[in-house]
Amino acid sequence: MPDLPPYTHEPAPEGGGLLRVRLDLAYDGRQFAGWAPQPGQRTVCGELATAVQRVLRVDDIRIVVAGRTDAGVHALGQVCHLDLPGDLWPGGPAATRRINAVLPADILVLDAQVAPAGFDARFSAQYRRYEYLISDSGRHDPRARGSVLIHRRPLDVVSMHAAGQVLLGEHDFAAFCRARPEASSVRTVLALTVDRRRDPRDPALISVQISADAFCHSMVRSVVGALIAVGEARITAEQLADFLHAARRMPGFTTVPAHGLALVEVGYPADAELAEQARRARRFRG
Amino acid sequence: MPDLPPYTHEPAPEGGGLLRVRLDLAYDGRQFAGWAPQPGQRTVCGELATAVQRVLRVDDIRIVVAGRTDAGVHALGQVCHLDLPGDLWPGGPAATRRINAVLPADILVLDAQVAPAGFDARFSAQYRRYEYLISDSGRHDPRARGSVLIHRRPLDVVSMHAAGQVLLGEHDFAAFCRARPEASSVRTVLALTVDRRRDPRDPALISVQISADAFCHSMVRSVVGALIAVGEARITAEQLADFLHAARRMPGFTTVPAHGLALVEVGYPADAELAEQARRARRFRG
Repeated sequence: MPDLPPYTHEPAPEGGGLLRVRLDLAYDGRQFAGWAPQPGQRTVCGELATAVQRVLRVDDIRIVVAGRTDAGVHALGQVCHLDLPGDLWPGGPAATRRINAVLPADILVLDAQVAPAGFDARFSAQYRRYEYLISDSGRHDPRARGSVLIHRRPLDVVSMHAAGQVLLGEHDFAAFCRARPEASSVRTVLALTVDRRRDPRDPALISVQISADAFCHSMVRSVVGALIAVGEARITAEQLADFLHAARRMPGFTTVPAHGLALVEVGYPADAELAEQARRARRFRG
Repeated sequence: MPDLPPYTHEPAPEGGGLLRVRLDLAYDGRQFAGWAPQPGQRTVCGELATAVQRVLRVDDIRIVVAGRTDAGVHALGQVCHLDLPGDLWPGGPAATRRINAVLPADILVLDAQVAPAGFDARFSAQYRRYEYLISDSGRHDPRARGSVLIHRRPLDVVSMHAAGQVLLGEHDFAAFCRARPEASSVRTVLALTVDRRRDPRDPALISVQISADAFCHSMVRSVVGALIAVGEARITAEQLADFLHAARRMPGFTTVPAHGLALVEVGYPADAELAEQARRARRFRG
């Protein structure tokens, strides 16, 4: 293995007899201090690295992830990659089975495969899609309360969806991001939908789905907080647009809790485009 | 209030200025030692009685329930009744809101209404419907692991459904019940279905649904254990029929864990039939 510190987010070196493996993951975020390793904290990356190291008998391992989820945020379609000496790789089904056998019950490897040439879990990604679940029916499933925001007042989903469309496209999302000096908050929102879905366990569960090239910190939870204000007629669609265009953090803005949020999909281009997409993204974000 | 011990399951006295209230409930069974009050244990009935007593300022309260769920079993459509002095009743929406405000997050009152004449939550019920959830996809949602049995081998759902049809009708279900001396294990199964459903969080979640006039102890979990054996081709449909007709507990029978099970519906007849249904059921089960 190259002499790099574990769990960094640097692009991996090409060549060197290493095999790049793509892992697709799901996890229940409640008992994790987020994805990113932190001393003394239980993190998704830390638990995954421990399991992979144990199963594949490697000493340290670098895991590069598509979406660094915050504390308490779930994932159903997280993607990461790691580089291994090729002779250690037992094949996808065996790796999936063996890693899952040692992982705790709140993380699951959905799939493990050798990545196509040019693949980088973080930089090849074209978009991330998050879903936030809200129940305003007063008839939620108590079993799902760890992944659904229980909201006591009825929400106007049609207004929320309509108002949210102003966020589509490239904007400075500073109004919806925790400020980070020297970091851009310009992002491109590709899709935003708010609708009720026929969930077998809740008659009218509200699903807010947002896809973007990338998200800045707390962006989805701030946007959902603002959409809830629209859904309760506390702010108008015009005020939401004004917030966006002001491009600075608004006082009194509500950020909804983490437990309703899940990273549901990471989108990649066709294999032939992976390397070029990674080059573009590195130039833009790196 | 009549001088009766709290939480008994005797039919409530008629008249006496009392108002009978029907409560519809959902709960996450994981942190409960079942429905029925037990000294020193956290139970659904105990938590509900405490909340109702606090909100309505009554000293003790008898709660009669349709389905006495076991430890760890969930409910999405539990029904119970209680009798109150009419002047204490604040009306259904206010009662629902106020009781929910003091209940712990794992119990929810879905609805509270004055019951129609002749209604008895237990004895007026025509059927109880339970659902057992199984994921054999290897791609379950980790957030749902508290309400789904994770099964490592693929199951043949079509065989399970077909074999299960032998259970329809009136039979002695002793093969599927924990033996209780002096208690009949004759029950009538009204419907049994095994199918995969398009769950937004699991590509092929298996739902086993069983409706019966009533269930004896551990009956659904024993039936599901036997159906899983059919789904893995460990026993045939004919052997399942032989188990049923032998009418005694089979050695080595697997009872699946409680956390996959939920009481999803209690069925009642039209209001005009409630009293007669209760009289019939009391004669048969009382």
